[in-house]
Amino acid sequence: MTATDLRIDRNRLIRRLDELGAIGAIEGTIGCARLALTDEDRAGRDLVATWMADLGLEISIDGIGNAVATMPGFDPSLAPVMTGSHIDTVATGGRYDGNLGVLAGLEVIETVIAAGVALDRPLAVGWFTDEEGARFPPDMLGSLVYVGGMPLEAALEIEDRDGLSVGDELERIGYRGAAPTPGRVPHAFVELHIEQGPVLEDEGITIGVVEGVQGISWTEVTLTGQSCHAGTTPMRLRHDPGVVAADVNLFVRGLTTEFGGSQVATVGALTLHPNLVNVVPSTAVMTVDLRNTDDGVLQQAETRFRSHLAQAADAEGVGIETRVLARFEPVDFDARVIDVVEAAATDAGLTTRRMPSGAGHDAQMFARVCPTAMIFTPSVNGISHNVTEYTEPDDLEAGANVLLDVMLRLAETDFA
Amino acid sequence: MTATDLRIDRNRLIRRLDELGAIGAIEGTIGCARLALTDEDRAGRDLVATWMADLGLEISIDGIGNAVATMPGFDPSLAPVMTGSHIDTVATGGRYDGNLGVLAGLEVIETVIAAGVALDRPLAVGWFTDEEGARFPPDMLGSLVYVGGMPLEAALEIEDRDGLSVGDELERIGYRGAAPTPGRVPHAFVELHIEQGPVLEDEGITIGVVEGVQGISWTEVTLTGQSCHAGTTPMRLRHDPGVVAADVNLFVRGLTTEFGGSQVATVGALTLHPNLVNVVPSTAVMTVDLRNTDDGVLQQAETRFRSHLAQAADAEGVGIETRVLARFEPVDFDARVIDVVEAAATDAGLTTRRMPSGAGHDAQMFARVCPTAMIFTPSVNGISHNVTEYTEPDDLEAGANVLLDVMLRLAETDFA
Repeated sequence: MTATDLRIDRNRLIRRLDELGAIGAIEGTIGCARLALTDEDRAGRDLVATWMADLGLEISIDGIGNAVATMPGFDPSLAPVMTGSHIDTVATGGRYDGNLGVLAGLEVIETVIAAGVALDRPLAVGWFTDEEGARFPPDMLGSLVYVGGMPLEAALEIEDRDGLSVGDELERIGYRGAAPTPGRVPHAFVELHIEQGPVLEDEGITIGVVEGVQGISWTEVTLTGQSCHAGTTPMRLRHDPGVVAADVNLFVRGLTTEFGGSQVATVGALTLHPNLVNVVPSTAVMTVDLRNTDDGVLQQAETRFRSHLAQAADAEGVGIETRVLARFEPVDFDARVIDVVEAAATDAGLTTRRMPSGAGHDAQMFARVCPTAMIFTPSVNGISHNVTEYTEPDDLEAGANVLLDVMLRLAETDFA
Repeated sequence: MTATDLRIDRNRLIRRLDELGAIGAIEGTIGCARLALTDEDRAGRDLVATWMADLGLEISIDGIGNAVATMPGFDPSLAPVMTGSHIDTVATGGRYDGNLGVLAGLEVIETVIAAGVALDRPLAVGWFTDEEGARFPPDMLGSLVYVGGMPLEAALEIEDRDGLSVGDELERIGYRGAAPTPGRVPHAFVELHIEQGPVLEDEGITIGVVEGVQGISWTEVTLTGQSCHAGTTPMRLRHDPGVVAADVNLFVRGLTTEFGGSQVATVGALTLHPNLVNVVPSTAVMTVDLRNTDDGVLQQAETRFRSHLAQAADAEGVGIETRVLARFEPVDFDARVIDVVEAAATDAGLTTRRMPSGAGHDAQMFARVCPTAMIFTPSVNGISHNVTEYTEPDDLEAGANVLLDVMLRLAETDFA
């Protein structure tokens, strides 16, 4: 493989990010809100579809509203090298999360077309519906349906909190397309995304070579004790669920030190009732988020957490109910595509780091059906899902150029 | 001193508790809601004032709405032996908290009058405005003003959450009286109250001989960290205020084991923001309630807590702001009155236990100006400030009879 001399147009990429970010812009910030299948999402889709059409790409919209734009003029038997991401955002979103992957893909294709590069197979860029899952759970819905992980009919019936369905909202905004699902299996898939974490910035690295996605285990724990007066109740007669919650919080923090590696653990939510200064709580509801790239280690973490929870609750005389909120096994990306990403970045003189993704992405769905990996660019202060989300223009440019080179290399790669 | 053969009328006492409890009754429960200076409080006052008047007592209402009903026919220079408590409740109150002290006092006086007992000085029973502080902070407002701890003018200006003032609400319900504050200093003061805790029931004891009120230290701690993604942020880059809050919770729990004695510690309130399963919290706001009967030990507990807080927050890279919500020194009751309570209960063949009060009571205000102590009766399951608050009729009767004997003994006691 060889590095390309082609370079994307940095200013055009940033201009498009700005234009798309202006739709649903949150006043006084650089953030935006385009929840899936809202009027703002429609406006964003219309804008990106216009850009796709202006390039002469063949656009197909499927039944869940995913759009795939493919370079024309190739033998229909040649599966494309596909990139893509999403253009929906959370309610307090930034302008890079997802959008970068779609617009950088468009930029790559425009650059390749303009240069008249001869390719063994077409390039394609897609957006995938409702990646955030902020309006319609689960997240990554569009790519899940694309790869055949959920029947279209089931997806169309999913409702938001107001009882509006995916199917009806797709109809309403004019994006319930005719292309079949599952969609065409790409030759390979690669997604450029902001890291949404602080590691690259912290280590001064430009390109994250993403090896896979962490496995996720979410548990909600309801601890039931005995509410009583904080002044009149001696310690020996207490059954304080808040103390058990505190104990579990410190225990799972300790597990991360003991296990090391990619193990993370978070108690993000904790609600005491009645939550008064002078009343021992009657209940504590807490969440425990455990993640690891190794499912065996993740299972060990889950076992240790549950065992300690039982022990701590028993010692305090507090009852336990647990509910699994989510459980996803880790996803391993394709070693060959990972190598291509690393080689392209290194050949461009960029610093790299192999890393897992701590968040879910459309690419993990494509990993089920074709060789797949991801490229990360740094997030300033690690902030995402927030209006202050930001990535430096130099990093946007570097990421898009790596994407360009990776797609060209993947087009020449025989994965058979 | 000698025990009296007089006994209160158990059925009359319970009937009056039921009648008063019916005002502001919370449907489907035995609890009631008579927040200070509401229409329900007025109706409760009217009922109790009627009972006082029916006994021919001299009723004086002062500027903060405290009522003191005194046996007539004594030399005005003779200060009364006073008992009393409050008839306001919290929003989810029971029918015993406060009400028992007032109605048992009335019962004592009715019994003494009916028996024609010759007394060296009069007996008096009072209710004191806004003991709960649930509508107008601080708690024990009426007794505080009675003993001169707060100028009347300042108390009248206190507003509830709707901006209604104590003065206006007293006018509205017709209980802004003419009697001066500070009020007349009693010869001695004794208050019968439910324990509001589980100790007496747990130990199978009928009468708590209350030696004083625990000192109280309430601190609100605001911990400010850095919100970040629970999946993408490595542990080493986290500044999780929830972990610090957990650490502090377990630390103050540990202090109670280390210090022993009356030391209690409670984290009753803890609020994480944004309180989401997959987001490391940006802030945690917690309360720490420390209590001890010994102010020196309480100060040690405060120092140790603050020092550990600083250390834990520093280790996690989390900012601290603390705010003192309340700080009251312990109150020691009068050893002579304590002895009288213990002797009266023991002579009646009742089991007793010396104990501190973990909650605040009107008696602690009177302890500033005259010999004072308290009598506790058991609370079933230690529950109070709750509609399920309950004390067995046998215990109500025993407590009222001890109050009767104590008041008669105090009338004969020369404290000079």
